[in-house]
Amino acid sequence: MKEKGISKAVISRLPRYYRYLGELLDSGIERISSGELSERMKVTASQIRQDLNNFGGFGQQGYGYNAYVLREEIGKILGLDKMHNMIIVGAGHLGQALGNYGFEKNGFQIIGMFDVDPALKGRLVRGIPIRMLDEMPQFIAEHSVEIAALTIPKDASIEVAKTLTDNGIRAIWNCAHTDLNLILPKDVVVENVHLSDSLMRLSYNLSALKEEEAE
Amino acid sequence: MKEKGISKAVISRLPRYYRYLGELLDSGIERISSGELSERMKVTASQIRQDLNNFGGFGQQGYGYNAYVLREEIGKILGLDKMHNMIIVGAGHLGQALGNYGFEKNGFQIIGMFDVDPALKGRLVRGIPIRMLDEMPQFIAEHSVEIAALTIPKDASIEVAKTLTDNGIRAIWNCAHTDLNLILPKDVVVENVHLSDSLMRLSYNLSALKEEEAE
Repeated sequence: MKEKGISKAVISRLPRYYRYLGELLDSGIERISSGELSERMKVTASQIRQDLNNFGGFGQQGYGYNAYVLREEIGKILGLDKMHNMIIVGAGHLGQALGNYGFEKNGFQIIGMFDVDPALKGRLVRGIPIRMLDEMPQFIAEHSVEIAALTIPKDASIEVAKTLTDNGIRAIWNCAHTDLNLILPKDVVVENVHLSDSLMRLSYNLSALKEEEAE
Repeated sequence: MKEKGISKAVISRLPRYYRYLGELLDSGIERISSGELSERMKVTASQIRQDLNNFGGFGQQGYGYNAYVLREEIGKILGLDKMHNMIIVGAGHLGQALGNYGFEKNGFQIIGMFDVDPALKGRLVRGIPIRMLDEMPQFIAEHSVEIAALTIPKDASIEVAKTLTDNGIRAIWNCAHTDLNLILPKDVVVENVHLSDSLMRLSYNLSALKEEEAE
């Protein structure tokens, strides 16, 4: 049911709409105009209308958007109306933090965690036992796994990503400090989370701000 | 020494250049042409030349770039030539994961961690004791803190962000599930890390890929 040729930029904004609409509903607001949404999100009303028109538009002239319907529709577009089974590869601090994060409320259920450290074997993270990495292929064969989150050091990430894709995983949420999308087959989707890159952007913006003020 | 009017898009690509140049140096490569860098980074050579020209360009015709010099220069632009003191507010799973991440190798030194949970009081994360949130203003007054990472629930994040800025913090690395830049003063820089948004983009791309294949 997806429209063709929706730009990456629009897609990348949808989770934010989804989040804001959820907040509106939480605060009891069920109907909102593009103008009010614009005010809250600091995006122009025309941008909002354009973005949402990509999906047929869910607004009615003079009425605005029904926040519930709109959020449901965006959720469907994002695939959030189905539960996605996810495994976490790398059960160190970051892996355990993701395991504890609560992504299941957005439709991402963690069903397995893996590591190479024998000291972690069997430890429970929110009820999920940490398994050894060599058990992963069999686990994937026996369970329906859609997404693998990679929270392992850069050096191990390429080999593990290949093992994952060899075993049929098509979606990798990559928190390793490298760009896996460049080395994996085209029929595998990768979303990179580069924490250090983000921190560097913050650092740049802070020093740019200070220089501006010093002038 | 920053050039004026560099686009956000260019800035957002600099950490990636910095990372790739570091990898080149690690593997013993000290000189690289824009063509070779293009091959590795899957960005056009002309994009690379354009991006780096924003900063005066560090390449020499027929020689290429000196990876070491270029990385140092990009590091300076990003402010990575100085050590930045950072505190982490919220010492739950994600806060502790960030505390253990090792950002100091990029110039970000964690000097304090804070939480409201008395059970965490005094626990050490990489040698840094977790302090109670009400000690934070005094800590900031007594230490030189540049950046605060926020790893707390959304509902608490606005009040804590205000306390931080009231106490002179100008840079917030926001992992709370809300857009703090919309509510904070203009002279505070915010970089949002929205993990759920990222996971939703992955989910969208996976279902778009599957639909494409089904056709």
